[in-house]
Amino acid sequence: MKKLINAPETVLSESLDGFAAAHADIVTLGAERKFVRRKTLKPGKVGLVSGGGAGHEPLHAGFVGLGMLDAACPGQIFTSPTPDQIAAAMNAVDTGAGCLLIVKNYEGDVMNFEMAAEMAEGKVLSVVVDDDVAVERSTYSTGRRGVAGTLVVEKLVGAAAEESRTIDELQALAKAVNSRTRSMGVALSSCTVPAAGTPTFTLADDEMELGVGIHGEPGRRRVKLETADAIAAELVGSIIRDLEPRRSHGCLLVVNGFGGTPSIELYLMVNAATRMLREHGIEVARFLTGNYVTSLEMAGCSITVTELDDEFIRLWDAPVHTGALHWGRV
Amino acid sequence: MKKLINAPETVLSESLDGFAAAHADIVTLGAERKFVRRKTLKPGKVGLVSGGGAGHEPLHAGFVGLGMLDAACPGQIFTSPTPDQIAAAMNAVDTGAGCLLIVKNYEGDVMNFEMAAEMAEGKVLSVVVDDDVAVERSTYSTGRRGVAGTLVVEKLVGAAAEESRTIDELQALAKAVNSRTRSMGVALSSCTVPAAGTPTFTLADDEMELGVGIHGEPGRRRVKLETADAIAAELVGSIIRDLEPRRSHGCLLVVNGFGGTPSIELYLMVNAATRMLREHGIEVARFLTGNYVTSLEMAGCSITVTELDDEFIRLWDAPVHTGALHWGRV
Repeated sequence: MKKLINAPETVLSESLDGFAAAHADIVTLGAERKFVRRKTLKPGKVGLVSGGGAGHEPLHAGFVGLGMLDAACPGQIFTSPTPDQIAAAMNAVDTGAGCLLIVKNYEGDVMNFEMAAEMAEGKVLSVVVDDDVAVERSTYSTGRRGVAGTLVVEKLVGAAAEESRTIDELQALAKAVNSRTRSMGVALSSCTVPAAGTPTFTLADDEMELGVGIHGEPGRRRVKLETADAIAAELVGSIIRDLEPRRSHGCLLVVNGFGGTPSIELYLMVNAATRMLREHGIEVARFLTGNYVTSLEMAGCSITVTELDDEFIRLWDAPVHTGALHWGRV
Repeated sequence: MKKLINAPETVLSESLDGFAAAHADIVTLGAERKFVRRKTLKPGKVGLVSGGGAGHEPLHAGFVGLGMLDAACPGQIFTSPTPDQIAAAMNAVDTGAGCLLIVKNYEGDVMNFEMAAEMAEGKVLSVVVDDDVAVERSTYSTGRRGVAGTLVVEKLVGAAAEESRTIDELQALAKAVNSRTRSMGVALSSCTVPAAGTPTFTLADDEMELGVGIHGEPGRRRVKLETADAIAAELVGSIIRDLEPRRSHGCLLVVNGFGGTPSIELYLMVNAATRMLREHGIEVARFLTGNYVTSLEMAGCSITVTELDDEFIRLWDAPVHTGALHWGRV
């Protein structure tokens, strides 16, 4: 195992300290590093709280800030945060309008966020994100997994929350965004959880895992490595068949790196995916390219497509000021 | 070789097409993809032009836009752009105030930018960036190499150029920034140039290359992998001994990933480097963390330190709106 770390057991805490120092204008770290919260809260705004296992950075702490999340709870690597952490985060950011929990569909996450909701003092609603079309059931999930579509939910709902919408309105929006969003990924290499010390799975020199999960869990099938165009065709095709977007609407295309694939390849995939979408009669109206929902140092990428309408475009373009996403006047 | 590509010879062109599509609000691609230029030029502003071999993305095209570069010329992977490309870029973005060329100190780049300067119609000055303290001479350079400090030069000079300073003032500023900036890197793995098909160098499972160059060229020494703290101490120590920053001034700390190292490790290095700097009596006033000057999918990182003063801080904080860096009101 070759990593820039001191010891497996302190990777998360040291990394969180670095993150909090680097973004001290935006976030503060909760006691015992239970959560990362927005430095300045907006009274009367619904608190948006997410979280999940570490190892997917910048998800979720990198999305805490104006226009996105109010708090994020990091579990240990690929491990759900505890109900205690999540409840502490909710209590820290609920200014009276309640908290909406944005939860990726993994059994541990769903259970712990539910338990936390029961512990909370204020009103709590939640939405479960399940955008991954690769498999209907996996190692860690009943039903589809939540992957990079989660950041789209966090961005659009985060923008809407800044407009002082009610918690019920925000939950309805979150469900609508999730229902218009689909993803699928491919792995070219495995990743190594520091505490394990060995790769989560193995791939031969000429193999890839199509439909891989963000913990390296199996996808649809292991096949010989193909060209970028063939991979893009498979991912985009699977997404489009499932999403059935209306031709008249543009889409958001997220080409998300899993951590070990460089920018030059991700933009090449943007080019390929844009062509594939156009062949399906769909134009890309908004793009996001980079490492946003990662699996440690795994090589590969996922493609996420969200069907846009005017409202979604307006919310996507709204200002965001977080560690990992920045745009617009704030 | 496992990459998301179609063919080695089309990697750059396909990636540039994806980049130009994804950032069509900011950039346009020059004819024959000779350069990436800012979509909207500001008449009377000095044109800032950089470039170099591809494989270091987002450097340089990702830094084209308001507050940074006017044009970037991508060579093939790890290959200098041609004088013809650079001259075409200068002619495209010179609105009458001349062009300042920002050149990393590699023999091919220096020669080709010099030849381009002789071909240009308007006034041309240049600055050579040589921030890498690792070695005094390397495979591709006479004198120190230019590495991630280049983005600091591009950011600060880019902000100053927006204030309509003269080309002579901007050249002086660029030299001043370069003189207050030092970097050093470490590789935990090699990278593979697509056209070569095999790794540029090899490291044993327990080895790292200290002082590695951004083309995978040798650094100071190959040693056993150490802890993040020991690596940070070596990199920061080498930088500080050379830079000799004044204690009273804060610094900018850039922890730059080489492409294959995930965010969780980079922020852990931020934490380690911040502690080391503090032990030297230096506080970090500004942070930048991420994959900015990469070596394809190489694992590892570099640390860059720039000694700040009030003017440098103001220029760093000034708005920037490019594919890879975004902040402030624009």
